[in-house]
Amino acid sequence: MRLARIDTPTGPRPVVQDDDLWAVVVDHYAPVLERTGETYPVDGARLLAPCEPRVVLGMAHNSGPEDRLVPPQAFTKSARTVIGPGEPVRLDPAAGRVVVEGELAIVVGRTARHLTPEQVPGAILGWTVGNDVTAYEQSALDDKFTQSKNGDGFTPLGPWIETDLAAPDDLAIDVQVDGATQAEASTSGLAWDVVEQLVYLTSHLTLGPGDVVLTGSPSTSAHVVPGQTSSITIEGVGTLTNPIV
Amino acid sequence: MRLARIDTPTGPRPVVQDDDLWAVVVDHYAPVLERTGETYPVDGARLLAPCEPRVVLGMAHNSGPEDRLVPPQAFTKSARTVIGPGEPVRLDPAAGRVVVEGELAIVVGRTARHLTPEQVPGAILGWTVGNDVTAYEQSALDDKFTQSKNGDGFTPLGPWIETDLAAPDDLAIDVQVDGATQAEASTSGLAWDVVEQLVYLTSHLTLGPGDVVLTGSPSTSAHVVPGQTSSITIEGVGTLTNPIV
Repeated sequence: MRLARIDTPTGPRPVVQDDDLWAVVVDHYAPVLERTGETYPVDGARLLAPCEPRVVLGMAHNSGPEDRLVPPQAFTKSARTVIGPGEPVRLDPAAGRVVVEGELAIVVGRTARHLTPEQVPGAILGWTVGNDVTAYEQSALDDKFTQSKNGDGFTPLGPWIETDLAAPDDLAIDVQVDGATQAEASTSGLAWDVVEQLVYLTSHLTLGPGDVVLTGSPSTSAHVVPGQTSSITIEGVGTLTNPIV
Repeated sequence: MRLARIDTPTGPRPVVQDDDLWAVVVDHYAPVLERTGETYPVDGARLLAPCEPRVVLGMAHNSGPEDRLVPPQAFTKSARTVIGPGEPVRLDPAAGRVVVEGELAIVVGRTARHLTPEQVPGAILGWTVGNDVTAYEQSALDDKFTQSKNGDGFTPLGPWIETDLAAPDDLAIDVQVDGATQAEASTSGLAWDVVEQLVYLTSHLTLGPGDVVLTGSPSTSAHVVPGQTSSITIEGVGTLTNPIV
């Protein structure tokens, strides 16, 4: 099932895809999706960020097997950095050079705290493409990552939420800049898998409906400059495209 | 002027104090406050967290003059940690020992980015008491502070927002546990003052209406255990009291 948020003449609406229509629903996070009867053609609909997280977490150093030698670690990003497909990532020349990072993003479906591994699948609404934009010269200046991770538009999400994903731990990620592949990898390259991540994170804090976890960048970053366009494709989810300005 | 949010039979409402009444307003962040005509007696009203931040920032190492020898640094806290006066701070035995930290909190009034020192006063809606609860044994394990700062109820705010504060850089802070003072200090002990903080923070990210900056703890922390009650008083603002459970 594919969930999204679209712009309509009466404002943003949560929707579910029914063939070539987006069907408006009352609440993505209700136990049973309730359609209002209002529909919009998929063709031509403007997609927004597919969720409105209160909490955005990113996994730090989660790129390869050697990262299992140290404990997992995460950072929080400002919820104001979230943008949707097609919206601009705004670079600030004062912040130095910037990379896009293509990452599988978990969208949390319900209040989640102290999850056991068995409880993790039931806490996940679905999956989207995340771009953890990073002003990487700032990371060296600020180990809390506040300076590097929170520029305007630094968390593109979308294009939609895929709720059924057979094997989230082995999905191809392709990062393109201006149509040319700059990085290719698989979520199988992540040191800590999604179950381990949510067990770890919810041992320390509460997550809730719409919150997002950027699961880590298994060497899926690419340098970008203003005027370029980044496109990140995750197998089985979709392609998230954003201009860099 | 004193702004708050109160619980009413029809839900939470933003209010302004008119003598012994809370007068409901349309929007705390409007250029001119518009009263709806609905009022509630101040006596007996249940106060909620006075704002609903999307972004909560705390200043790291901002406790004394020596902290000016290193660049300012900040961390982000989950917005889900925010609670109001009287609500419980929930300790997790697995997280180890916990301190409350009494801090002057800035409530941002409008979208703010790349502020100059002269623009800072116009970007501030007002001031409240903040409690940056910290599981400090976790800080040593996680330099990003994600593990130490995001427990349930770890950001009490309140009791209200005071919009007129003559000298925010010289206010007495008193931290009590079960009615006994454990720490006393002044905001004059902060290494970076509030103008410097907002210039620094907005050079890296966008803040918006209702966002909160915890300005730092000038030795205003106290160890707490379940069953105790913390009360933090900031001169000219008020007293924020929360049970520890």
